[in-house]
Amino acid sequence: MTRQELFDQIKQKKSFLCIGLDTDKTKLPKHLLKLEDPVAAFNRQIIEATHDLCVAYKPNLAFYEADGVAGMQSLEKTMQFLPDNCFSIADAKRGDIGNTSSMYARSFFDHYGFDSVTVAPYMGSDSVKPFLGRAGKWVILLALTSNEGAFDFQTQKLKNGKTLYEEVLRQSAGWGSAEELMYVVGATKAEFLKEIRQLIPHHFLLVPGVGAQGGSLADVAKYGMNASCGLLVNASRSILYASSGENFAERARQEAMHIQEEMSQLLDQYLG
Amino acid sequence: MTRQELFDQIKQKKSFLCIGLDTDKTKLPKHLLKLEDPVAAFNRQIIEATHDLCVAYKPNLAFYEADGVAGMQSLEKTMQFLPDNCFSIADAKRGDIGNTSSMYARSFFDHYGFDSVTVAPYMGSDSVKPFLGRAGKWVILLALTSNEGAFDFQTQKLKNGKTLYEEVLRQSAGWGSAEELMYVVGATKAEFLKEIRQLIPHHFLLVPGVGAQGGSLADVAKYGMNASCGLLVNASRSILYASSGENFAERARQEAMHIQEEMSQLLDQYLG
Repeated sequence: MTRQELFDQIKQKKSFLCIGLDTDKTKLPKHLLKLEDPVAAFNRQIIEATHDLCVAYKPNLAFYEADGVAGMQSLEKTMQFLPDNCFSIADAKRGDIGNTSSMYARSFFDHYGFDSVTVAPYMGSDSVKPFLGRAGKWVILLALTSNEGAFDFQTQKLKNGKTLYEEVLRQSAGWGSAEELMYVVGATKAEFLKEIRQLIPHHFLLVPGVGAQGGSLADVAKYGMNASCGLLVNASRSILYASSGENFAERARQEAMHIQEEMSQLLDQYLG
Repeated sequence: MTRQELFDQIKQKKSFLCIGLDTDKTKLPKHLLKLEDPVAAFNRQIIEATHDLCVAYKPNLAFYEADGVAGMQSLEKTMQFLPDNCFSIADAKRGDIGNTSSMYARSFFDHYGFDSVTVAPYMGSDSVKPFLGRAGKWVILLALTSNEGAFDFQTQKLKNGKTLYEEVLRQSAGWGSAEELMYVVGATKAEFLKEIRQLIPHHFLLVPGVGAQGGSLADVAKYGMNASCGLLVNASRSILYASSGENFAERARQEAMHIQEEMSQLLDQYLG
């Protein structure tokens, strides 16, 4: 999916919501457990109940890998349920030497058919570039993550005066264009967004941490929105597990609609 | 596998060789391609031909994930072929927020039964700790990697005078003991090992980059070996693809023996 197509979806749906499919077998409604593939069945109903309210889905690879082959079968099925007008994100946080990153790109882009994959920057440019240069496919590079551990290294000051995450933004912005590169910036660090937008005004940001992790959507929009919206805000647990009963999909829709309504107002406010 | 058990294997086999199972379907000997699972068949023969010469095997997850479900089936089979006296490394370079890292730990330690997993440090302590605290299971944390891109961020000087990789070593050495934490240090950067050993004298190091990437085994031993050897030196392509003919396993054994003989001499030289 191209940047323009993504922005068109955002305008059409009045939403920049990404739903994280962190589907945890131990949290599924009991009535699904008797099915052959409860995870795929759950994801299918979540997607059917929410796809008009969000612009992206983000399966978290760990939750599928935890069950080995069976989990990856659930992921393959889930990818088939995703409508074409939704942007798909493999939340995988990969990154390795060049020939290995090429294999990961083959896995996520070619085998599973994702539009994008999250990548960790620690190993530098040659670990990221194998994911770039494919029309309509994206790298979403970790910059400033939503967890406490972000303060261990990401916010360390370098000798050149920048923080590590600023240096990651500065260098990586030269590796690919804003048509193929996004960044992860946690909603729990919304106050950093103002300075981040000075470094990368045009790039899309994937923003986790709203909801269960406590970040504020209004602050994210205030400091992070650009002329193409430039934001995908993720919510996972608050939507997926809104109810543990048979009405889980309906309640997930209500939660997603709640967020979408706030997003619609914020889009009106900042983009008119 | 505990640290003592690993060192016992090293002494017994006179080897600190780790064989990287970066098994690439496109590089397999042609006669295997007619089998149902050529990757598993190849790995099985490689393991049978080399397990007395090496102390560890390191499947590179990307090469299995590239084929989706079928690839993960090959990995499950490969894990069954590994003898109990060989240390197993999931070369996966994972790292995510706490609940996600816990799911990755479940995948690699519980589902696949690996002894260890490689982890990227960018997201900090709470992304690494969920992998720690399991007797006989290990985190192998990226410190200074073997690729060119290591110079983009890892060797950047911080305001506190340390490089980023030194800061990673310094902080993370407090997250877990040398009984559960190893580090990746590339053989292509052997000259850095002297200073690294001052920071972490006791930890095992996983050293990629000998062979196809050009690092020197003698230098690695000279600067990196400690009283428990403290080294696992990886070779992948030079062993796996020593021959593309029907004699591939035999040639792989010759290559592995070549390295093991040099390792035996180095162990005699430094540990006497």
